[in-house]
Amino acid sequence: MRYAVLGTGEVGRTLGGRLVQLGHEVTLGSRTRDNPAAVEWAAGAGAGAHAGTFADAAAFGEVVVNAVGGRVALAALEAAGAGNLGGKVLVDVSNPLAFEEGELRLSPVESDSVGEQIQRAFPHARVVKTLNTVNCRVMVEPARVPGGHHVFVCGDDPGAKEQVTALLGEFGWPADRVLDLGGIRAARAVEMWLPLWVGLLQKFGHAEFNLEVRRAR
Amino acid sequence: MRYAVLGTGEVGRTLGGRLVQLGHEVTLGSRTRDNPAAVEWAAGAGAGAHAGTFADAAAFGEVVVNAVGGRVALAALEAAGAGNLGGKVLVDVSNPLAFEEGELRLSPVESDSVGEQIQRAFPHARVVKTLNTVNCRVMVEPARVPGGHHVFVCGDDPGAKEQVTALLGEFGWPADRVLDLGGIRAARAVEMWLPLWVGLLQKFGHAEFNLEVRRAR
Repeated sequence: MRYAVLGTGEVGRTLGGRLVQLGHEVTLGSRTRDNPAAVEWAAGAGAGAHAGTFADAAAFGEVVVNAVGGRVALAALEAAGAGNLGGKVLVDVSNPLAFEEGELRLSPVESDSVGEQIQRAFPHARVVKTLNTVNCRVMVEPARVPGGHHVFVCGDDPGAKEQVTALLGEFGWPADRVLDLGGIRAARAVEMWLPLWVGLLQKFGHAEFNLEVRRAR
Repeated sequence: MRYAVLGTGEVGRTLGGRLVQLGHEVTLGSRTRDNPAAVEWAAGAGAGAHAGTFADAAAFGEVVVNAVGGRVALAALEAAGAGNLGGKVLVDVSNPLAFEEGELRLSPVESDSVGEQIQRAFPHARVVKTLNTVNCRVMVEPARVPGGHHVFVCGDDPGAKEQVTALLGEFGWPADRVLDLGGIRAARAVEMWLPLWVGLLQKFGHAEFNLEVRRAR
């Protein structure tokens, strides 16, 4: 499969690298065609790894992964171009977190979410929110954390969620550890997990943890 | 020990009932002295069970448990009286959730929390936020849910957190399943878990679940 991964930070490079390892073709997209992080990644990640602009990547990919920060997601996707997103599965793994004056802030929050913003802005994309609840190394290698811990998917297109659940399976998440929360509105709930995730990160001093949902029945 | 439990809803009655079972004396507090739910509870819950106003309860209790809804917590505690709260451990188990026009809303959120509001309004109370992340039946009987699932405590007074951790132990939460998130500011993080909790409630069709934090080390 051909993937666009938008974002050249640790999340984008980690997801892109794992997709190449799995035998996929990946174009890592950034604002500019000569982004050093993207060029270096493409040179080292394997035969299926390419670099380009957001638009190059989105035109190339059959599936588009948003791995830029949640607060710049709409700008990156505008640059990618609505025409390159229409009809495609758009996997949003982002969180709208920022440290402002030493305080962790989440925006949008509660009455909206990045996942919903993206779906509204690109109504012809098939947006699925997933993986934003774990560190990127856990995203692509869940066995780094012991136990039967979970990830979530939500989105308005059931077929898109099925396709993303299969991708999560390639990453190492069995289907019974992928919890479907319904439509894209549930992106609010998974994005609002982040302050607790950050609290646990600060407590443990590392990001190799996740939540397992335990239930009586 | 003498406990005040403020709130005659399911949460207050469940917590109060369990405290009486454990051998404590409990006054369940409400807006009025003749609240039918409180009077009925006091008649049936055992020898240590009493009912009264918020102020009666808070004057009686060595420890005060806020079990009214998060949005009316400050009003209930004002009625309880600052003079009845000073120096006491004040356990806040509430969430500022409400359904408004069919939509779940959380307020305050993100830049504030009920736990912080209470600590600011009653600076001489020793506020500990805990248990708000689980259903009240799970609060007092964690074995209803299988596995080594967790609860959180946060608050600015380490001694108060120790005392609350011991109380959680009486309820059936071993100390290694109580995660201390630091100061009362972390109440934001645990209150923001609620939308995901509600999503899981809707998915499972019951409230007998909780999260277990899995970690690599």
